[in-house]
Amino acid sequence: MFFQIQPLLTAEQAAAMARQLRESAKDWRAGSETAGWHARTVKNNQQLERTSALHQQLAAALQDQLLHHPLIQAATFPSQIHNILFSRSAAGEGYGRHVDNAWMGGRRTDLSFTVWLSEPEAYQGGGLVLEAPGGEESFRLPAGHALVYPSTLLHRVEPVTQGERVVGVGWIQSRIRHAHQRELLFELDTARRALFERNGKDDVFDLISRSYSNLLRMWDS
Amino acid sequence: MFFQIQPLLTAEQAAAMARQLRESAKDWRAGSETAGWHARTVKNNQQLERTSALHQQLAAALQDQLLHHPLIQAATFPSQIHNILFSRSAAGEGYGRHVDNAWMGGRRTDLSFTVWLSEPEAYQGGGLVLEAPGGEESFRLPAGHALVYPSTLLHRVEPVTQGERVVGVGWIQSRIRHAHQRELLFELDTARRALFERNGKDDVFDLISRSYSNLLRMWDS
Amino acid sequence: MFFQIQPLLTAEQAAAMARQLRESAKDWRAGSETAGWHARTVKNNQQLERTSALHQQLAAALQDQLLHHPLIQAATFPSQIHNILFSRSAAGEGYGRHVDNAWMGGRRTDLSFTVWLSEPEAYQGGGLVLEAPGGEESFRLPAGHALVYPSTLLHRVEPVTQGERVVGVGWIQSRIRHAHQRELLFELDTARRALFERNGKDDVFDLISRSYSNLLRMWDS
Amino acid sequence: MFFQIQPLLTAEQAAAMARQLRESAKDWRAGSETAGWHARTVKNNQQLERTSALHQQLAAALQDQLLHHPLIQAATFPSQIHNILFSRSAAGEGYGRHVDNAWMGGRRTDLSFTVWLSEPEAYQGGGLVLEAPGGEESFRLPAGHALVYPSTLLHRVEPVTQGERVVGVGWIQSRIRHAHQRELLFELDTARRALFERNGKDDVFDLISRSYSNLLRMWDS
Amino acid sequence: MFFQIQPLLTAEQAAAMARQLRESAKDWRAGSETAGWHARTVKNNQQLERTSALHQQLAAALQDQLLHHPLIQAATFPSQIHNILFSRSAAGEGYGRHVDNAWMGGRRTDLSFTVWLSEPEAYQGGGLVLEAPGGEESFRLPAGHALVYPSTLLHRVEPVTQGERVVGVGWIQSRIRHAHQRELLFELDTARRALFERNGKDDVFDLISRSYSNLLRMWDS
Amino acid sequence: MFFQIQPLLTAEQAAAMARQLRESAKDWRAGSETAGWHARTVKNNQQLERTSALHQQLAAALQDQLLHHPLIQAATFPSQIHNILFSRSAAGEGYGRHVDNAWMGGRRTDLSFTVWLSEPEAYQGGGLVLEAPGGEESFRLPAGHALVYPSTLLHRVEPVTQGERVVGVGWIQSRIRHAHQRELLFELDTARRALFERNGKDDVFDLISRSYSNLLRMWDS
Repeated sequence: MFFQIQPLLTAEQAAAMARQLRESAKDWRAGSETAGWHARTVKNNQQLERTSALHQQLAAALQDQLLHHPLIQAATFPSQIHNILFSRSAAGEGYGRHVDNAWMGGRRTDLSFTVWLSEPEAYQGGGLVLEAPGGEESFRLPAGHALVYPSTLLHRVEPVTQGERVVGVGWIQSRIRHAHQRELLFELDTARRALFERNGKDDVFDLISRSYSNLLRMWDS
Repeated sequence: MFFQIQPLLTAEQAAAMARQLRESAKDWRAGSETAGWHARTVKNNQQLERTSALHQQLAAALQDQLLHHPLIQAATFPSQIHNILFSRSAAGEGYGRHVDNAWMGGRRTDLSFTVWLSEPEAYQGGGLVLEAPGGEESFRLPAGHALVYPSTLLHRVEPVTQGERVVGVGWIQSRIRHAHQRELLFELDTARRALFERNGKDDVFDLISRSYSNLLRMWDS
Repeated sequence: MFFQIQPLLTAEQAAAMARQLRESAKDWRAGSETAGWHARTVKNNQQLERTSALHQQLAAALQDQLLHHPLIQAATFPSQIHNILFSRSAAGEGYGRHVDNAWMGGRRTDLSFTVWLSEPEAYQGGGLVLEAPGGEESFRLPAGHALVYPSTLLHRVEPVTQGERVVGVGWIQSRIRHAHQRELLFELDTARRALFERNGKDDVFDLISRSYSNLLRMWDS
Repeated sequence: MFFQIQPLLTAEQAAAMARQLRESAKDWRAGSETAGWHARTVKNNQQLERTSALHQQLAAALQDQLLHHPLIQAATFPSQIHNILFSRSAAGEGYGRHVDNAWMGGRRTDLSFTVWLSEPEAYQGGGLVLEAPGGEESFRLPAGHALVYPSTLLHRVEPVTQGERVVGVGWIQSRIRHAHQRELLFELDTARRALFERNGKDDVFDLISRSYSNLLRMWDS
Repeated sequence: MFFQIQPLLTAEQAAAMARQLRESAKDWRAGSETAGWHARTVKNNQQLERTSALHQQLAAALQDQLLHHPLIQAATFPSQIHNILFSRSAAGEGYGRHVDNAWMGGRRTDLSFTVWLSEPEAYQGGGLVLEAPGGEESFRLPAGHALVYPSTLLHRVEPVTQGERVVGVGWIQSRIRHAHQRELLFELDTARRALFERNGKDDVFDLISRSYSNLLRMWDS
Repeated sequence: MFFQIQPLLTAEQAAAMARQLRESAKDWRAGSETAGWHARTVKNNQQLERTSALHQQLAAALQDQLLHHPLIQAATFPSQIHNILFSRSAAGEGYGRHVDNAWMGGRRTDLSFTVWLSEPEAYQGGGLVLEAPGGEESFRLPAGHALVYPSTLLHRVEPVTQGERVVGVGWIQSRIRHAHQRELLFELDTARRALFERNGKDDVFDLISRSYSNLLRMWDS
């Protein structure tokens, strides 16, 4: 359903990004400007202007880290990592319950991710709460860690009560539309890699690789 | 199944377009040049050369009007509005029964539209006849009005018997492939907008918005 | 993903069933007899003979309770509740990691359920562990409570270390194949029922009911 | 979308059924008893008790006529014709806007039909109004005629203002789930039958028959 | 695409069946009686009356052999083996090019089979010719051998030029609709059985078994 | 399943390409560089560097020939012809059993093709062996001929034992994902073209053209 990358960025990389963001005071805008007509009513945070030079530098760095991470590759089948945003929530700010738009700028939002840039000690509140089918789950990860979850979930960011929460967020358009398909493919790939290590490229490996490859063709979307 | 935009252009805008088209005599070509191998045998009208400056100006204007029209947005989910053509049929001309090609220039034709540029009084005959599952229906709309219908239908333009019929036509590639899916989504969106007006963004609104958003993800194509 | 019915049976009903089961010593068989060729190697418990009179009486009672429970109706869309089994695990017994067969006696296993008949205090160990996408989760519910979960999950029953664990288990063939479809339909139904209570059968209710009904038609399988 | 059978029953057969129905006063019940929880609030007519001998005789006759009608066979691909009801609406009665349940007694409602048993002159009002995608359409057919339409539509029976309206209604579970698939198959079948008449069983006929037969296999549901 | 069972029946079993068939002269009918309206024009053989006692005995035996054959189980996922027929073709008889009906008696024809009961030396001609995508292929198998092939293919039985050809034929409704899905599942099952033999029920086996089981659920139809 | 183009290039064109390739010694690289992590272990041949001028000239020529070939158009529905490679295998070289990756450079591999540039007399061994569902098939075509086959098959190039084998290979992303859909569309198109030649654009032609066009819309992917 959702998984963590522990870490995606080193603590130093995350701290450096957070520092750069904090220092670019003039480029911050009300987050409600980039939300859909109804999410806007509950979005109460600040976002780095997408046309700013700093945004472009940091977004490219984050996109690159994600796109080449082996777990992202094996579990999310990214065709696009898109619409990265840097946001910060001061005391009293947050983002009420909502579901993300299905398309942003023409690209589908199959998975959402949050990369924490401030350490959990730097703020109170501000938990990212996912309404998963099995119940709510709340996340406050260390700086540099990422959470990837299906964009199909209702979710919210609890109000920050003290300090400041700084994160990068964004979306993945997957080549494989459904979460249950991605999960099956990830397990089949895990199985064949284990077999390859154990026995090399034998007949059983070839059969499973053929199934894997042909399921990708069937489910590509 | 099909719906009218009353109007898409004001009567003045339509009249201005019609006048510009009438005055660019050198840019007209036989319509059969842009039809498929079999539709060609029944296509008997004139079309504005697509490479002409006038075509590019008028097509861009029409595309822009359509793309931002709220009904087009809510009911057709356009990813591309494409292959706009301006055509005129003098007395004796028309376009026999045919179905549009499934792709034009690499883009799918999910919906077709006609925007009338001449007033119905300006010509006799020339009705656009759709062979809908419930029977034939014929259309001669006022200048500036548009008809949008599924490209899956057999249709024809009856011969003009007097005067001249001038229209713009084109196609929409929809993000949502099937007409029955678009219809369901349009109704769910209508329902949630009515709820939002009545009660704001409450729990019921969030549940329906989540369903709407996740159906878009499932059916995106 | 999974949900609990708290309770399905009263504590008294559960206790009565458990007592009847405990007293019918001659009807118990090795559980491995009803497992598939590979699950058999890890199934180590006892099951009530399906042809026994006691089995038929208790299975019919359980099936009836489940079939008419409003949450089962609204969330699982049952076409069949089938292959109910009563099993008990004494100290040292359990059921290793496995996935249920996709069909049992010609019926599809879309959802699995366990109804606890012994109280958690009556045994040590014996947790039902589900390998959900978000991680493992272990269940030891009170007598009379039920857990319903997708049959698509790997799961196991941890060895009982003391006392005896008695449960009824079984499967649901759903009219709606995919968990994400059932979840969407359940939420849409929840929304329209809330609207009906609030405003009665108005236009918005009719639109949502039409969407709900037509999604059932599309996804029926 | 919808089509008429003109007639399904001769005027005499329809009149005889109507007479038998009118004479069985004791077997009529409030129609709301067989409607779903929300349709019930708008259903205001009388229905023949399904367990009565008369119902069983007439329903079997109607089912038989429908099942063997060539147009029903070629256009609706019936696997079940089910839940036939005989209803009558006196002055002041009707059936408000609703959509039919997706399943009735475990069978899917893909298409609905109404067979008129009273002549249109015998009552005022009582039109069957379908909310088709292209707009509302109202039907008051001659006795013995039938209308078949997708069960996916919102529809209503306008209040009868004078006289009495007597009809038989029921549902078809189709082997082919979607209306657009049935329409395509119906046309392909029409084409191959025309070719068979013209040229017999030649190579072109075989290719089209193969396509037809394989589309049935693909879309069977 | 298609596969042979070598043999399904021993030569003795096949010879005994052929002898019984040959001796029941009074039960044979023209094969055209059981063909569809167009296949009838090219079907020119004899068939054992389906209501005869001999038919019922032999059909039950054949159905039983097929249903329990491991290759049929693993590669065709039978939900029904149905409409078995015994046919014989004397000199001059055969069955021209045709495709089988998609449904017979309410059951889908996903796969067809022929079981040869006479030895190839007993007749000349009479080859079963399949028009596979890669080209035509002709079969004259030994008595007791079976050929199973997709019912989606055009095929024919070449005229017998000498002697007599006796076969049993029939159809399989598969739980898995598409040939490419059955092929993928068959290979995945082959792979996991090889792994089970090599390493027992380890983690890799569990992952592949889960994928296999969940694909069956997804594709069940 | 697979089909040959006899020829795609004239013998002279093929010979000219082969000569140019043979003369550009400095541009050849180990083929394993462009294979996936597992195919790499069995790929043992030489490939022309993709950035070389010669590659770009020859690949463009081959792509152009294929894209405009009527059989490619009618049977494979190409949206992209991509990743063309020129490879040569000297004695001892070949390419072991493997399945192609589902995507290459973001494009799906629905069909694979090989165009032979050396004559079969110029080398021994080197057969392209496809593991089709009906069994293995080996190909050594004349220079200029092409073989097109589904990328879903396991395949290999047998070791060359003498001389040198020179080929161009590449992939087609099809607008129509599944082989059985492409086959059905190809036959329907063949049928309507035969009808058009025989009777022109009559009603039957229009019905079949509509079905054809609407199936393209449904299956476009």
